[in-house]
Amino acid sequence: MIGSIKNVAITGGTHGNELTGVHLVKHWSKSPEEVSRGSFETELHLANPKANAEVRRYIDHDLNRQFNLKDLNNPDLQGYEQQQAKSLNALLGPKEEPRVDFILDLHTTTANMGMSLIINTDDPLVVGMAFYIKQKMPQATLFFNPSDRIKDNFLTSLGRLNGFLIEVGPIAQGLLNYQVYKDTHTAVMHALDYLEQRNTGQVIDLPTQMDGYQFMEKVALPEGSEGEITAMIHPNLQNKDYQAIKPGDPLFMTLGGETIVYEGTSTVYGAFINEAAYYDQHVGLSFMEKVNIKLTDD
Amino acid sequence: MIGSIKNVAITGGTHGNELTGVHLVKHWSKSPEEVSRGSFETELHLANPKANAEVRRYIDHDLNRQFNLKDLNNPDLQGYEQQQAKSLNALLGPKEEPRVDFILDLHTTTANMGMSLIINTDDPLVVGMAFYIKQKMPQATLFFNPSDRIKDNFLTSLGRLNGFLIEVGPIAQGLLNYQVYKDTHTAVMHALDYLEQRNTGQVIDLPTQMDGYQFMEKVALPEGSEGEITAMIHPNLQNKDYQAIKPGDPLFMTLGGETIVYEGTSTVYGAFINEAAYYDQHVGLSFMEKVNIKLTDD
Repeated sequence: MIGSIKNVAITGGTHGNELTGVHLVKHWSKSPEEVSRGSFETELHLANPKANAEVRRYIDHDLNRQFNLKDLNNPDLQGYEQQQAKSLNALLGPKEEPRVDFILDLHTTTANMGMSLIINTDDPLVVGMAFYIKQKMPQATLFFNPSDRIKDNFLTSLGRLNGFLIEVGPIAQGLLNYQVYKDTHTAVMHALDYLEQRNTGQVIDLPTQMDGYQFMEKVALPEGSEGEITAMIHPNLQNKDYQAIKPGDPLFMTLGGETIVYEGTSTVYGAFINEAAYYDQHVGLSFMEKVNIKLTDD
Repeated sequence: MIGSIKNVAITGGTHGNELTGVHLVKHWSKSPEEVSRGSFETELHLANPKANAEVRRYIDHDLNRQFNLKDLNNPDLQGYEQQQAKSLNALLGPKEEPRVDFILDLHTTTANMGMSLIINTDDPLVVGMAFYIKQKMPQATLFFNPSDRIKDNFLTSLGRLNGFLIEVGPIAQGLLNYQVYKDTHTAVMHALDYLEQRNTGQVIDLPTQMDGYQFMEKVALPEGSEGEITAMIHPNLQNKDYQAIKPGDPLFMTLGGETIVYEGTSTVYGAFINEAAYYDQHVGLSFMEKVNIKLTDD
């Protein structure tokens, strides 16, 4: 495994209105020494410049849903982000045999998810990175979402090892917040330090397991007969990401002030609670389950 | 003055990504009894439907800067919002001799401004409305910004009495928050109750003066040689709207972590601190002064 990482890409602005990653990528382009490490090359990319110029999440489609292999190879998909995904595939991939080993993609959320490390693989190098960052930043939450890299539609799946999203909130779209900027900066530094230590054969003391949350399902906002939103996230649930939701707990409050409760039979945990970007699909939150994430041997 | 108000308009979505007003207007369109009062007519309008459909502040220009008389009468201004302003002028105005007496325009902000009542006139009926709401909702802040109604470029200036913006935050663009929704709803109910009491000659016990804040100037985010943003709102200032900023207090933090302080000589107060909508102009906050607002006799 020593020396196995040659090329690392840091991407910002995959969603054009999440400015933290955009400004970090611009900052590092001027101060590349901060992201350079001796044993691998680090490259920096603004993933969706047109959406960023318009301070919108996307122009035609969500860029971070365009990277499954079938879509990348489908010449009929010609929306701006679909073309942009193909360009990024040529630049960082190709998906089947990627040039880039690892992609760190920087995101923000309007939900109160703190520093969330979204891990899309159980590969020990990647899981180990998350454990390493959480050791340094105990407030971080591990968001475990293992997927088949070839079918995965996230930008990070273009890397040889299915990568890693750093998702920080709460922050409104279209602005910067120093704490969010600094925490994201710090997490990236730890990620690069970890890769450097792995690459150069240093012994890294990591636990063999850590707690995290695994995605279960998206939960729709209640709708009326014409498909219009008829309820909001309940005030008791707002900002309560990663906290237990038990049967009978309030989920939504209707425009008229009536409470709608969780009618499931098992305890779940919320994430992406009241994320602005999901209003177009009328998604109110995600249900997660608590899981124990194992760090296997290489 | 009794019976002087005949027509009141409530407008939402003047900025298309401020959903609270949009959903309140839709709610009241289905439940008009909530906004109906015996002595005047209440009408409901979505001010910028196209921007709202795209969940953007505006399509071509900020709608809420298009209402000065000169611009309304300038046939060369043909952007979407400029045309929309002319349509609203025909519907609610005309500005020189308006059909509508009073416009309540519903806004939200990403800044921590709580419930702010923006008063663009010293007319006693309007100032009295703000005092009345603040008596009922003591957490409200009076944001005093008197202007010449004919030159004023806000939508509310189309009303015969220069009106009233209800501006609530912090809330990200593009989403709903029950508390923000409920507070805005409550403030509108008080505003309508006040007009009803005035119109029907009821005695309303109001103070003759209240404290508030008056707009002084916009403060730009620091920029680099290529016009790019080089600093953010300082973490000590974030969320501190309406709190004192004294000479030497931190204003900004550069991307590299250096503090930039306020170099003025007198104490000021911040508002619209880190408002996402002002990033296109690189405006970081507004400086306000504390003022005593007088309620004069009719």
